[in-house]
Amino acid sequence: MNLNALQKIGYGMYIVGAHKDSKLNGQVANTVFQITSEPPTVAVSINKKNLTHEYIQASRAFSAAVLCTATPLQYIGAFGFKSGREVDKTKGVTYKIGQTGSPVFLDHATAYLEAEVIQDVDVGTHTVFIGRIVAAEILNEDPCMTYEYYHQVKRGTTPKAAPSYIAKEKGGEK
Amino acid sequence: MNLNALQKIGYGMYIVGAHKDSKLNGQVANTVFQITSEPPTVAVSINKKNLTHEYIQASRAFSAAVLCTATPLQYIGAFGFKSGREVDKTKGVTYKIGQTGSPVFLDHATAYLEAEVIQDVDVGTHTVFIGRIVAAEILNEDPCMTYEYYHQVKRGTTPKAAPSYIAKEKGGEK
Repeated sequence: MNLNALQKIGYGMYIVGAHKDSKLNGQVANTVFQITSEPPTVAVSINKKNLTHEYIQASRAFSAAVLCTATPLQYIGAFGFKSGREVDKTKGVTYKIGQTGSPVFLDHATAYLEAEVIQDVDVGTHTVFIGRIVAAEILNEDPCMTYEYYHQVKRGTTPKAAPSYIAKEKGGEK
Repeated sequence: MNLNALQKIGYGMYIVGAHKDSKLNGQVANTVFQITSEPPTVAVSINKKNLTHEYIQASRAFSAAVLCTATPLQYIGAFGFKSGREVDKTKGVTYKIGQTGSPVFLDHATAYLEAEVIQDVDVGTHTVFIGRIVAAEILNEDPCMTYEYYHQVKRGTTPKAAPSYIAKEKGGEK
């Protein structure tokens, strides 16, 4: 068995936003995907240790901004390798409060959606949150970043809390 | 709300294989994704009307072959726009029986995985099958097809039973 085969699975790159009362947070995610079209429903897999997980469980909602290819590594790093428990991720970035109350992070985004959680699926280290789409907009026609592009062209790394983390990947142990 | 924003979500392209006793089937899917790394676990969203759905429910297992960019549209069409109830999809294609008993379709594949289903999540028109990885191999380093590439470069269409189907898409009503 060669688990590196899992790196061939294709994803986009997203900033998932969530809130708990007036507190806001966001994190990088690659596992956002549509699971039904009628009604439009998406799923996202979030590590139980992440602050975003706590916020989604509290507010029963999340946003997801689709990142474009030109997104700087620094922007991804700020959302992906730091915890909202230690830093305020809303500082210095552009966002709006969406109709679910979740922050929608707009920098380097080509589209976004918001969803209301209808089901939590416990999958061990992560929860798969299933949500009905309540808002969705296209912001521009910039090409969307793929997870593969992030790794191969951008030389980005994967944090340990990601669903797609593989232990021997260089730089992943942050 | 602009549901075309959902087309910005990134996916790969896969042939999902399943069996029921000695009967074999496969279908195109774009919603394969890893949801935890420890233990390695994937999810796939399959329309309840599809024969593959019936076979996965019966055998509690599935395979997924990752398609490369060079995959001919005809190959995708044979798996995506026809039902295994009407045609034998194993005819004229290369496959092996994997360790779960599922057929692993090898033509135009760059990698594959097999999973044993541990949970069925009912999401209305579709079931999200969550499976533990029991086999995974890389076959070559050909570039993987993205769903975007399939649409934009290959001019491929989306069958109505797909999770990502959008009603007004041209050619989708097959």
